[in-house]
Amino acid sequence: MMDSYRLHYAPDNASLVIRLALEEMGQPYQTTLVDRRAAAHKSAAYRALNPAGLIPVLETPDGAIFETAAILLWLADRHPEAGLMPTPDSPRRAHALKWLFHLSNTVHADLRILFYPDKYIGSDPAHQTALQDGICARLKVHLENIDRECTANPDLLWRDAEDGLTPTAPLLYLACMMRWMALYPSTWDRSWFDITATPALAAALAQLEQRPSTATAAQAEGLGPTPFTQPSYANPSEGSAT
Amino acid sequence: MMDSYRLHYAPDNASLVIRLALEEMGQPYQTTLVDRRAAAHKSAAYRALNPAGLIPVLETPDGAIFETAAILLWLADRHPEAGLMPTPDSPRRAHALKWLFHLSNTVHADLRILFYPDKYIGSDPAHQTALQDGICARLKVHLENIDRECTANPDLLWRDAEDGLTPTAPLLYLACMMRWMALYPSTWDRSWFDITATPALAAALAQLEQRPSTATAAQAEGLGPTPFTQPSYANPSEGSAT
Repeated sequence: MMDSYRLHYAPDNASLVIRLALEEMGQPYQTTLVDRRAAAHKSAAYRALNPAGLIPVLETPDGAIFETAAILLWLADRHPEAGLMPTPDSPRRAHALKWLFHLSNTVHADLRILFYPDKYIGSDPAHQTALQDGICARLKVHLENIDRECTANPDLLWRDAEDGLTPTAPLLYLACMMRWMALYPSTWDRSWFDITATPALAAALAQLEQRPSTATAAQAEGLGPTPFTQPSYANPSEGSAT
Repeated sequence: MMDSYRLHYAPDNASLVIRLALEEMGQPYQTTLVDRRAAAHKSAAYRALNPAGLIPVLETPDGAIFETAAILLWLADRHPEAGLMPTPDSPRRAHALKWLFHLSNTVHADLRILFYPDKYIGSDPAHQTALQDGICARLKVHLENIDRECTANPDLLWRDAEDGLTPTAPLLYLACMMRWMALYPSTWDRSWFDITATPALAAALAQLEQRPSTATAAQAEGLGPTPFTQPSYANPSEGSAT
């Protein structure tokens, strides 16, 4: 019998968020490596799954889904027992939903500009640097706002389940993005990012690192023992992060 | 008895998307004008509703929601009879969800950069122009991808209801964003935007313009008779768009 899900991934790409979610949910899935060195995500075959040519794509019985947060939300709603998001009828749904969209359309959108400025402003290095500087200043503010929110409302990060605290979709998403802020672009001065400036988030990342889901994902993508709090570049057994 | 919903709005701002949705759903709501000329959206009182200081906010019995697409999705799920989105258990949910997130984190995110480049790259006009040029090129590609998708899958824009076709959340969102592309920034050469380049979307915007929801919203915010296909600047009875 086929697994229901197939994740098109590249190591340490946004697909990592979905891998963590599938591991947390205990849902079986298969993976297909997207060979970034061969620009496989820009191929016609991949663009048939996602016309924007971005990673990840999750193939499901309901078709291929793209956009990291859309996949997260869809999985959370299909497998509500995992508690990744409050259910649609929950009084806490609105709260989680607005922050999930904020992570997607503000934090992640800004992060893409920092990583790929050429896709927004062309090839002039002075223009690119000005843009990246502006984005780093924005990201600091975003993280401070989110840290404040999570201090006031810890249920944005953790669901209080019968068998203890379990991570939410926003936490999985945020942990990966903070990892990437610490590492990328590799040629950029990343001292703007200071995990200790957001103590509630730092504590959540340390706690998330203790979970079997993190260990399994880190093993699969070569992320090392502390992928969120003390990240190092991926050393995957197949494929490449960039 | 109080209405359940209160929309914090400014004329022709992203709150217009939510006003259209509430009108389409036939849900009663009250409005509070956010006085942009006095930067009321940056006040402490407003930031208590949305720390990012952005419009809109919708106050609901479950608290204040921000992020346009989060509000849209939450309303759609709370009032499924209006058909703004496929329900969470629908086989078409995945399809609508990935494009809703794409509109939010790619089209709308890029549009903000075009409108407010200073918030991303500082005050140098040469830097700003380079960024805005890059964004316009991106937006053209986004619209072409979306037009192709809507040609293949018209249910992304219209729900086939018993009493005829009704607009979906993605259509309401897209129609407003295409309006803004045609109008803003007022000092920018907007000839990059050509509604006829995306015929499926152009036809949908013309059809949406015939609906009572559009007429009511246009009346409330001073948008004129053809707010989507032949837009003119808002002439509202209260407040200002910028």
